[in-house]
Amino acid sequence: MTARPDRPLDPDLIEHLDELLAATGRIARRHFHGELQDLVPEDKGGARGYDPVTEADRDIEALLRAGISSMAPGDRVVGEENGESGPSDASRTWYLDPIDGTKAFMTGMAGWGTLVGVVENGRAVAGWMDQPVLGETFSAVHGRSTVRRRSDGPEAFDLHVSGCDELSEAIMYTTHPSMFGDDGGLRRRYDDLASRVRLQRFGGDCYAYCMLAAGRVDLVVESDLNPYDIIALIPIVEAAGGVITGPDGRQPLDGGTVVAAATPALAEQAWEVLGADPR
Amino acid sequence: MTARPDRPLDPDLIEHLDELLAATGRIARRHFHGELQDLVPEDKGGARGYDPVTEADRDIEALLRAGISSMAPGDRVVGEENGESGPSDASRTWYLDPIDGTKAFMTGMAGWGTLVGVVENGRAVAGWMDQPVLGETFSAVHGRSTVRRRSDGPEAFDLHVSGCDELSEAIMYTTHPSMFGDDGGLRRRYDDLASRVRLQRFGGDCYAYCMLAAGRVDLVVESDLNPYDIIALIPIVEAAGGVITGPDGRQPLDGGTVVAAATPALAEQAWEVLGADPR
Repeated sequence: MTARPDRPLDPDLIEHLDELLAATGRIARRHFHGELQDLVPEDKGGARGYDPVTEADRDIEALLRAGISSMAPGDRVVGEENGESGPSDASRTWYLDPIDGTKAFMTGMAGWGTLVGVVENGRAVAGWMDQPVLGETFSAVHGRSTVRRRSDGPEAFDLHVSGCDELSEAIMYTTHPSMFGDDGGLRRRYDDLASRVRLQRFGGDCYAYCMLAAGRVDLVVESDLNPYDIIALIPIVEAAGGVITGPDGRQPLDGGTVVAAATPALAEQAWEVLGADPR
Repeated sequence: MTARPDRPLDPDLIEHLDELLAATGRIARRHFHGELQDLVPEDKGGARGYDPVTEADRDIEALLRAGISSMAPGDRVVGEENGESGPSDASRTWYLDPIDGTKAFMTGMAGWGTLVGVVENGRAVAGWMDQPVLGETFSAVHGRSTVRRRSDGPEAFDLHVSGCDELSEAIMYTTHPSMFGDDGGLRRRYDDLASRVRLQRFGGDCYAYCMLAAGRVDLVVESDLNPYDIIALIPIVEAAGGVITGPDGRQPLDGGTVVAAATPALAEQAWEVLGADPR
């Protein structure tokens, strides 16, 4: 990748994202509230076990890819469903996860979302998480993390993490314990971490990172993530004042094991329990 | 309790419930979307650990109690927050849980709800579960289980459970594994059960029972419940065609360990793994 200076995101493209997410939100709601037989689960196979793909997934990714590619033809687009498009030497890449949290989606829970993340010159610089059933769009653009709630009108509210800097005071989310394996060292260290926080809950999916950005959750610790699961959420957490890193202390652009925390002190305490190299 | 024949619920009272839940939904949303400092967690003490009470809890229970007591002065009202009112020999008792799923509520997740359940002559006969952020009211009255979604207008849609009758095909929810203790026999049997289903997820709270009624989840297995956590949900599951029992095979009016299942065969298989007397 050639190191070119970051180009600020075109305001027209940012507004276009709002239009695209309004459109994909309608598609997602239609499938979410439709009969279960409208969803077409497919076994993608592989080692990750049960992983349904829905028609919503495919249609939403196609729509986002068409819109983004048209407005930013020089950018690369990488999607969970349909792979990569655009120039391979682009300095800017868009990561799409049309329905992140497919298990929540299929079982009627609201933790899923449509994720759009932007990586430029090796750093996640902007992200969107749209939850169309709740009518909420979380986003981070130009270093400002906000939420817009359809029921509250067009105003966007700034997001700020909590000040929590002690594990014993922290509220921690993790989508499912199986992310850390059924037993083994990483699972034992995760269970140890869970025993040290004030409140530990499962579920939440991508929504948990947004609640961290909003100051209602202090710590999200997950593992076995794919890049498109997490890239969009990195700027949302960072621009709200939070910390989100992999075991090497950098932005977890490759997924894997991730700690998102309200404060650097909290992140450090979590990594101390998880171990220096928790993979 | 004197065994008197059930009196059908007054249609006027049923419409009143819709009005009350519209009003309590606004109170709940206001606190849910408000700043965290608006919530006043209190330690209720006791053995159940961390259990925040919010202002929403108190205000909603007071409102529901005022409305129901006024429309049905001969009925008894039992609330999570403020105890019992009304004649102690009433044949009909209303159980109120103003915010069921307080941990979901405080952390910004949508699985919580306002529960109103009616017990008459020793059986749960009607129930409401209102989720005001999603704008959904699940209810069971006169043997019909329905959902109304604010975004879809006033029409109520009938709920029907799935036909799942094999553990290996079932999607199972449980709010948190700690319901079954940290280790011990019941936890081991729960973990055994979890290993036998097609998909096991945590979270969901009262919303998981509604998704069972809607056919998107096949099995909900929980423990350590209080009466007001579950009574409203019994008719919603039953009138959708599902089964919900305690270890004695009867309606779990006292809470405790509960299996809710799409079919009798599925319930039987779950209880077989949990053990005849899982307490």
